[in-house]
Amino acid sequence: MSADLNTLSLADLMRLKAKGRLDIHELVAACDRRVRARESEVRAFEHYDFAAVENQIKALGPDILPLHGIPFGVKDIIDTRDMPTTWGSAIYADHYPARDAGIVATLRSAGGIVFGKTVSTEFAFLDPGKTRNPINLKHTPGGSSQGSAASVADAMVPFALGTQTAASVIRPAAFCGVVGYKASVGEFDLGGVGNLSQTMDSLGFFTRDAEDLVILRQALLGSPSDDAIPERKKWKIGFVKTAHWQQADKAYRELIEKMGEAFATDGHEWRVMTVGPDSTDLADAQVTVMAYEAARARMPEYRDRAAELSPNIKALIEQGLSIPLSRYQSARRLALKAREELKRALLEHDFLMTPSTTGEAPATLEQTGDPIFSRMWTVMGAPAITLPVGRGPAGLPLGIQLIGAVGEDGVLVQHAVELQEYLRSRA
Amino acid sequence: MSADLNTLSLADLMRLKAKGRLDIHELVAACDRRVRARESEVRAFEHYDFAAVENQIKALGPDILPLHGIPFGVKDIIDTRDMPTTWGSAIYADHYPARDAGIVATLRSAGGIVFGKTVSTEFAFLDPGKTRNPINLKHTPGGSSQGSAASVADAMVPFALGTQTAASVIRPAAFCGVVGYKASVGEFDLGGVGNLSQTMDSLGFFTRDAEDLVILRQALLGSPSDDAIPERKKWKIGFVKTAHWQQADKAYRELIEKMGEAFATDGHEWRVMTVGPDSTDLADAQVTVMAYEAARARMPEYRDRAAELSPNIKALIEQGLSIPLSRYQSARRLALKAREELKRALLEHDFLMTPSTTGEAPATLEQTGDPIFSRMWTVMGAPAITLPVGRGPAGLPLGIQLIGAVGEDGVLVQHAVELQEYLRSRA
Repeated sequence: MSADLNTLSLADLMRLKAKGRLDIHELVAACDRRVRARESEVRAFEHYDFAAVENQIKALGPDILPLHGIPFGVKDIIDTRDMPTTWGSAIYADHYPARDAGIVATLRSAGGIVFGKTVSTEFAFLDPGKTRNPINLKHTPGGSSQGSAASVADAMVPFALGTQTAASVIRPAAFCGVVGYKASVGEFDLGGVGNLSQTMDSLGFFTRDAEDLVILRQALLGSPSDDAIPERKKWKIGFVKTAHWQQADKAYRELIEKMGEAFATDGHEWRVMTVGPDSTDLADAQVTVMAYEAARARMPEYRDRAAELSPNIKALIEQGLSIPLSRYQSARRLALKAREELKRALLEHDFLMTPSTTGEAPATLEQTGDPIFSRMWTVMGAPAITLPVGRGPAGLPLGIQLIGAVGEDGVLVQHAVELQEYLRSRA
Repeated sequence: MSADLNTLSLADLMRLKAKGRLDIHELVAACDRRVRARESEVRAFEHYDFAAVENQIKALGPDILPLHGIPFGVKDIIDTRDMPTTWGSAIYADHYPARDAGIVATLRSAGGIVFGKTVSTEFAFLDPGKTRNPINLKHTPGGSSQGSAASVADAMVPFALGTQTAASVIRPAAFCGVVGYKASVGEFDLGGVGNLSQTMDSLGFFTRDAEDLVILRQALLGSPSDDAIPERKKWKIGFVKTAHWQQADKAYRELIEKMGEAFATDGHEWRVMTVGPDSTDLADAQVTVMAYEAARARMPEYRDRAAELSPNIKALIEQGLSIPLSRYQSARRLALKAREELKRALLEHDFLMTPSTTGEAPATLEQTGDPIFSRMWTVMGAPAITLPVGRGPAGLPLGIQLIGAVGEDGVLVQHAVELQEYLRSRA
């Protein structure tokens, strides 16, 4: 069985561990075999060195920690003291940070093993890295957390860390056919995590099972109180098409509409609804806020190393510097207004549902796909989870996005677990 | 006149510059003379090297930037690529970050000169650094941004950067008799700024004139739209005593009450009021949130360098790890509820007023004073400004704290400028 350990979800690994049948040496060996077999094609890692993994395993204490010996991938804009952290930029090709990011140290304290650094687009913005979609190598894995999505999808690691400022978790997770969880703004410590926007940057997790998110949140944040777990058997789902619905592929729209009909047939409420200000205005607000804030966040490189920046990131910074304060503030106020309306909508619905992407991953490695179905939620700071819901006409994965109220991540994760069960039972 | 250039406020320097009469070489020379005369007593700097200042001056382009050649102090938990950044800890005594913090790069892009790194308490928490109060060397300058407050108070630099997670800007500014501005959470980029709490860390500025804050905000964020500037001649001031009022020194309470009477006499409204949940609960919530989040933020050092941490910071981390998620979440919810009530209160008042500290700086260098009058506003994420309002019985400075709505920093700064004018005209 050990040959397949790399394919198990974190939840499965925990069940094996509970039975005393998880050998962590076999686990990391299986993951290493998978990397060696596939990395030349998938190209998920910016830095990978199995000796570093073995060293961490050797340094582990007794098996008393929740994630004892569990390997995970770390997006390469997240600091690690023992592996380079390049932020997807040649500027930092050889950069070893002085300390781990808080989230990395916390996972290590829980027994986790940093398996390698996964490819990020340049500064978690547009310029793709080398990663290919493991389902079809001619297609983009999405971005910016592309190596994390691909490494989890290709069974190289059970989970991986990413970040999102526009669609950088939800999009690559959906394109690669895995679970992606983009946390609420403020939900996790971001010390040592490459920054782009002080009001939108969020941590993200890629897994192969929604249940894994419960395990990870518990290891990082502590156990939720029991009252956080909803017991509802019938959902009230708010289905938000947004003004961009027609930009989604026809086959994908049909899949979602069919899913909605099935919900209704099974006695769940499935209401087409809108949230907050016009979704086009909200998506525009996200663009404005990102450019304005990224200009300040990337000023260190723009000022000192401009020649080594891509035209895309330079254009973003210059766009941001040209945005008047009043326009930025209007965009922020719109986002905060929408956040309040989202909160109200979630008093009446268990969760909202909306497309994860415009459809399957495009057949290109030159760009990472359209972020349009994430922008409005990201500017609100909302938690989002994408679950795989099958394949499209080109044979690539499709996802469905769940949205919760800001700060209510635990509830959203619980709904995602139940929805995953429902979707699997229907498949 | 050049001997006194170091004593001028940023606003005065800008006026001199507008007349073509500011010689930046004379300015930095005057600041250097002041440091050499006083640093052995005040001990404001963790790192100071005039050659590095001269190098920055030499590298300046033509005088077209708003802060061309203006020196400023940088709290030593804020990254600088050309000067060590120790975070007030022996762990990072020789640490040179790979890049400037975003805020430092942005100020440099505006023409500013990093004059030196100012002393911080260990990781911006409790353990005092070496700095003494320039008004009376036997007294604490406050903390955590102690070197920034002292360097500005002692005319070594016109302004300095700090951070606040409890009272780390307002308290040292009040104790040293300068203007302190603690920004709203989310107002400025915090990339490369030492972190302690993902929901409370805020940037701060120390100046000798409230007008300087307008200049700095403009250089960093762009010009505010005209409608942001209130034209009111008579204020509606909400005076928040809080449940901790009796912890303030009697003389200080009397000074504030007298100020309130004067406002009323002059036709301003001065209403004693409360905001949000009980202020004791809010202060407790700040303690809970700080410990819980700091435990995750400082996990890199706790995991890898525990022997080099102070007992205070270790106790904070261990306290934080023992806090159940449910208690942390309750504290956060209380804070967000209070934030909403603060917003409503500021629809009916121009600004709120509350003590900056419990009184004058205590006669000790072993601790940095009581943060109680800042905790509740910090956990809400609110902007706060302290203005000097005279001296107490021991001859040390006292401040008065102005509070605004979250994200409405520009309005609060404008009120602070007007209030400063009012207070000066009455002095």
